[in-house]
Amino acid sequence: MSRTIVITGAASGIGAATVVRLQAAGHRVIGVDLRGTDIAADLGSEEGRAAMVAAVEKMAPEGIDGIVAGAGISNGELPRETIAINYFGAVATLEGLRPLLQKSRQPRAVAICSTAAMLPFDTEVVDLCSAGDEASALSAVADRPQTAYATSKNALARWVRRAAVSPEWGGQGILLNGIGPGVVTTPMTAPLFAQPEMIELMRQSNPIAVEGYAGPDEIAELIDFLLNMQNHYLTGQIIFIDGGSDAILRPTQV
Amino acid sequence: MSRTIVITGAASGIGAATVVRLQAAGHRVIGVDLRGTDIAADLGSEEGRAAMVAAVEKMAPEGIDGIVAGAGISNGELPRETIAINYFGAVATLEGLRPLLQKSRQPRAVAICSTAAMLPFDTEVVDLCSAGDEASALSAVADRPQTAYATSKNALARWVRRAAVSPEWGGQGILLNGIGPGVVTTPMTAPLFAQPEMIELMRQSNPIAVEGYAGPDEIAELIDFLLNMQNHYLTGQIIFIDGGSDAILRPTQV
Repeated sequence: MSRTIVITGAASGIGAATVVRLQAAGHRVIGVDLRGTDIAADLGSEEGRAAMVAAVEKMAPEGIDGIVAGAGISNGELPRETIAINYFGAVATLEGLRPLLQKSRQPRAVAICSTAAMLPFDTEVVDLCSAGDEASALSAVADRPQTAYATSKNALARWVRRAAVSPEWGGQGILLNGIGPGVVTTPMTAPLFAQPEMIELMRQSNPIAVEGYAGPDEIAELIDFLLNMQNHYLTGQIIFIDGGSDAILRPTQV
Repeated sequence: MSRTIVITGAASGIGAATVVRLQAAGHRVIGVDLRGTDIAADLGSEEGRAAMVAAVEKMAPEGIDGIVAGAGISNGELPRETIAINYFGAVATLEGLRPLLQKSRQPRAVAICSTAAMLPFDTEVVDLCSAGDEASALSAVADRPQTAYATSKNALARWVRRAAVSPEWGGQGILLNGIGPGVVTTPMTAPLFAQPEMIELMRQSNPIAVEGYAGPDEIAELIDFLLNMQNHYLTGQIIFIDGGSDAILRPTQV
């Protein structure tokens, strides 16, 4: 059965690998990114988010079957943009496209979080995100670039858990989950792999039990499952796919 | 590609549904249960566990590709058996068959835990389980029947997280995960659904956000994915498949 799936961050990394996988399986993909995709939009701005939703509505007025909120950046020099894109952009994508998703007989959504969601984060900024106060969240994070990425992913993971069990999502039969990739070899991590001290830092912050880091196509396999599964029961989970980092760092959390 | 999968608790419920699903996909299943399966064994006893491993070795000397440790009971009148089967039986299955699993090019294992893993449990018994001291664990749980089931599943979930990232599992490329089904309509829960007060208790202990409880075939879909996935990175996770219970009860745990 061919399904229509919207993927943000579709131009590279995990998003692009998911496009390839879904298209190979015969699904229709509507890709969103800054450029090079069906829809060009900057999800860091309110105008970009609204334009993206309007463009998807135009391309798929009959509705969509799945959403992957994958657009995200990891740049210590851009803390405001990190929160604006990774948290507010993702939530705006999922909420903005929810009416279209609700038209599907088997609606599914996936937010790409990160193992960074379990690292130290900024409680104040997470709370501002959860309250939907973007201006204050961006203002507060401006001078705390170190934790911006972890904070954005923690806030997103919490949002997934709250939203998934709300009347608008779970109550409508829309299954919503997050995935938390560990270290994956993508354009986002390429600059890290170019610096020996960052490689060592990743080894310490994301210890793995298996041989070698994953490629983005491996993460796409899990996203594919969560987008197309037929059960009506798996929702609100944050599934880490990280070579064991989560289990190594938090063995007693079950 | 046809794979050989061993399933304990194969005669009923989630185990039986998984047998049906895997066989329909062309896989070879070796079922284990007290009776009515390829191998009859009581995993509550050391002799039964050893006999099961010997029987699988005889049936599949070339090795196996997957294990589902699904045998389990929920009976408040049998606290010792609950720990013996649900924890020590499951661990003995996974550890006992690991040498055969290691012969696979794509080895995968799944332990069936439960949303009960997040309920109040008995720390002393969990610690005795983790230490591998079955005699003391059974002795300690004998007069605490109320928490025996939750304790057995919590101990199993912790074992999964520790073992998955050990040299023997993760280090050998064997991916090991747990799943935590919520309320599922199986023979194990049938007696509960026959009592109005138990239905109300389930509603309170396992609130769900979706419409209706799941059938065992829905849980089998997730087990199938975890048994046959090709990525080398998803391991050590406890994935709740519970209609949202986990997210409702623990919204900030990410």
